[in-house]
Amino acid sequence: MERVFNFSAGPATLPVEVLEQASKDMLNYNGCGMSVMEMSHRSSEYGAIHAAAKESLRSLLNLDEDHEVLFLQGGASLQFTMIPMNLLSDGQSASYVISGSWAKKAYKEAAMLYPVKAIASSEEDNFNYFPNLEQSAKDSVYTYVCVNNTIYGTRLSPERLASINGTVVADMSSNILSEVYDVNRCGLVFAGAQKNLGPSGVTVVIVKKDLLKKEKGELPTMLDYKIHLEKDSMFNTPPCYSIYICGLVMDWVKKMGGVEAMEARNREKAALLYETIDNSALFKNNIPAADRSLTNVVFLTGDKDLDGDFVAGAKAKGLYNVKGHRSVGGMRASLYNAMDISGVKALVNYMKEFEVQRG
Amino acid sequence: MERVFNFSAGPATLPVEVLEQASKDMLNYNGCGMSVMEMSHRSSEYGAIHAAAKESLRSLLNLDEDHEVLFLQGGASLQFTMIPMNLLSDGQSASYVISGSWAKKAYKEAAMLYPVKAIASSEEDNFNYFPNLEQSAKDSVYTYVCVNNTIYGTRLSPERLASINGTVVADMSSNILSEVYDVNRCGLVFAGAQKNLGPSGVTVVIVKKDLLKKEKGELPTMLDYKIHLEKDSMFNTPPCYSIYICGLVMDWVKKMGGVEAMEARNREKAALLYETIDNSALFKNNIPAADRSLTNVVFLTGDKDLDGDFVAGAKAKGLYNVKGHRSVGGMRASLYNAMDISGVKALVNYMKEFEVQRG
Repeated sequence: MERVFNFSAGPATLPVEVLEQASKDMLNYNGCGMSVMEMSHRSSEYGAIHAAAKESLRSLLNLDEDHEVLFLQGGASLQFTMIPMNLLSDGQSASYVISGSWAKKAYKEAAMLYPVKAIASSEEDNFNYFPNLEQSAKDSVYTYVCVNNTIYGTRLSPERLASINGTVVADMSSNILSEVYDVNRCGLVFAGAQKNLGPSGVTVVIVKKDLLKKEKGELPTMLDYKIHLEKDSMFNTPPCYSIYICGLVMDWVKKMGGVEAMEARNREKAALLYETIDNSALFKNNIPAADRSLTNVVFLTGDKDLDGDFVAGAKAKGLYNVKGHRSVGGMRASLYNAMDISGVKALVNYMKEFEVQRG
Repeated sequence: MERVFNFSAGPATLPVEVLEQASKDMLNYNGCGMSVMEMSHRSSEYGAIHAAAKESLRSLLNLDEDHEVLFLQGGASLQFTMIPMNLLSDGQSASYVISGSWAKKAYKEAAMLYPVKAIASSEEDNFNYFPNLEQSAKDSVYTYVCVNNTIYGTRLSPERLASINGTVVADMSSNILSEVYDVNRCGLVFAGAQKNLGPSGVTVVIVKKDLLKKEKGELPTMLDYKIHLEKDSMFNTPPCYSIYICGLVMDWVKKMGGVEAMEARNREKAALLYETIDNSALFKNNIPAADRSLTNVVFLTGDKDLDGDFVAGAKAKGLYNVKGHRSVGGMRASLYNAMDISGVKALVNYMKEFEVQRG
C-alpha cells in the first residue's frame, strides 16, 4: 500500500522528505555511529541538533531578544497549569476567551489555582464563531486566547490578535508556522508539536523573559519556566528525538520559503476547499468568513448517515481521517503545512463526485 | 563509519533490530499508509501499539491486577513532584533514602510540598555505597528509594528492596527490566525510558491503584495519576512514537527470553568488567560487592590525566561515552540490556592493553 492522504487533526501528516531523512539517519546519524535516540543529551552531536532546532524556530518566527524558546514535555495540557502557576501571584487575575473546548479546559485548570475570568465565549453557539474580544478586563495580568480551534474550524486573525490590549498568552498548537502572526506581540505562545511541528511529546513555549517574576523555589522545579530557561530546556533529559524531528520539519519549512510561503500554500489549499463547500448544495460550513481556520476545515451534509458514508468512501479512496470531532459531527479536513495541495484536490474531486451520486 | 559501542548512561544504546524495524516502518507502518508519528492517537492502529506496549510491560514484570501501567511525560524529574502530590495529604509524611543525587533531588522536590524525612544517606561518603535502611520511619506513607544510582554505580538488591517495611516507591529508571525485582511488592515504580526502555520523552509509572486517594479536582489534571489511569494514559496526546519504540524494545526483550534472561546477560557482562577491574593494578572500583550496580559500572585510575587519556583512547577505538559523571570522575560504562557482551569484551581488552602501556 502507498502512503495515504492523512487529514488527521493531530498527530498529523509530516513531510515525506522528513520521514525519509529520519529513516536514513536511524541507525547512524551523520556518521556518528549511533541513532539520535541513543545520544546523550549532553553530547556535542545532540547539542548541535537542539541548538539548530531552537535557532530555526527563532528565525522562522522572527523572534526578538526578549523572547526565549523552550522545548518542554506534557503537551499543551500541562501548559494550562504552568501558565497561571508561572505568570500569576496571589491577588492577581487573568482573562480567558472561551473559543472552544481547549480554551475552556485551559480556563478550568487556571481557575483551580487563581480567580481568572472568562471574558467572552461562543459556547452557546457550539463555538461556531470566534468570540468578540472588546470587553477584555483591564486588571488582568494576561489575556488568554486559543488562536486556532482545531475542533470547530475557527481562528482568530493576526489582525485581531494584534489588537488585544496588554499581555497576550496564545495557544497556537494548530496553526504555528502556518500563518504569519506577530509572536513578539505576545507575552507567551505555546504549541504542542503534533500538528505543524513534528511528533507528539514535545511542546514549544515561547516566553517573554520579563514576565517570569517568581523566585526560584516557589514552584516545583519541573513546572518552573525560569529553570527550564536557565538550563536551555535541559534541566532534565529533553524529548531529544522529537526535537530532532521538529528540527527536520523546520528545515523543510525554511527550504519551502518560510512562514509566508506556508501561509500562501495554506491559503490556496483552504480556498480550494471552502470554495468547493460554498459552491456545493450538499456540503455546508457555517463559520463566518473572517473566522474560518486555514488549517482545520469543517463541513457537513446535515445528515449523519450521509456524513458517515462520505467518511467511509473517502477512506476507500486513500483520504484518511476526515471524520469530524464528535462534538461537531460531520467532516473535518486538517490542512497543516505538510498536507500537499494534491491531497486537497483529491478531496474536492471526491466531494464533487459524492455530491453527484448522493446529493 | 560503522556503529560504535555506546556506553552512555542515558539516552543509551538500543537494540539494532529495533532501530532497523523503526527505520523500515518510518514511511508506512504495517501497510497503513503513514508513519507511527503521523497517526491519530485515537486511531485503531495507534491504539493497538499502545495496548501492546502496556501488555508487554505487564507480562515482563508479572504485574498483578492491583497495579496499573501509565505512560507519562516529563521524565523521572516530574515524578519527583507528582509522587508526593498524589500520595500525601496534609499532616502526612514519607521517608526518603538519600543514595545519590537523583534521590536527593526527589527528596528536595517532595520537601517543597510536604514535611518528608531523609531517613538514611551515604552523601558523606560521596554516595559510594547504598545506605542502610534499618531506621525506616514508622509514620511514613511510603519509603522512597532510587534503586539504581546511575552516577555512583550502586544499587539496592532485590532482597533488600523486598525487606523494606510498608509501601515502597522506587525509581527504577536505570535498571527496570535489567534485573528481576518484585514490582508487585512496591506501591509505585517509575522509570524514565531512556536507559532500558526506549527513547527519552516517556516515563513509565506503575502504581498500586488503592494508593490514589485524592478526589478529582484536588490536583491539576495533568499531575493527577487517577485521571491518567482512567484515560489509559490518553487524557491528552501521549508521546506516541516514544511508546511505539518502547514496545519494540520490549518485544526484543521478550524474544531474548524476558527479564530473567536479561539479568543473566547483565550479570555476565558486569562480572566480566568487575573482574577486570578487581584483577587490575591500575583500575579501581570501591563499591561494596553487594551494592555494585549491574547496569552502571564506575572505575578510575586515581590520576585525572590518565583517566582522560583512557577516555580519549576508548573513543578512538569506537568505545563511546565511558567518561564518568563529573561528581565522581574517572570512567563509567553503562551496560544496559541493549549493550551486547561483545562491547564489554572490547572494553576490557582495551583496559588490559591500556594498563600494559600506561599502568
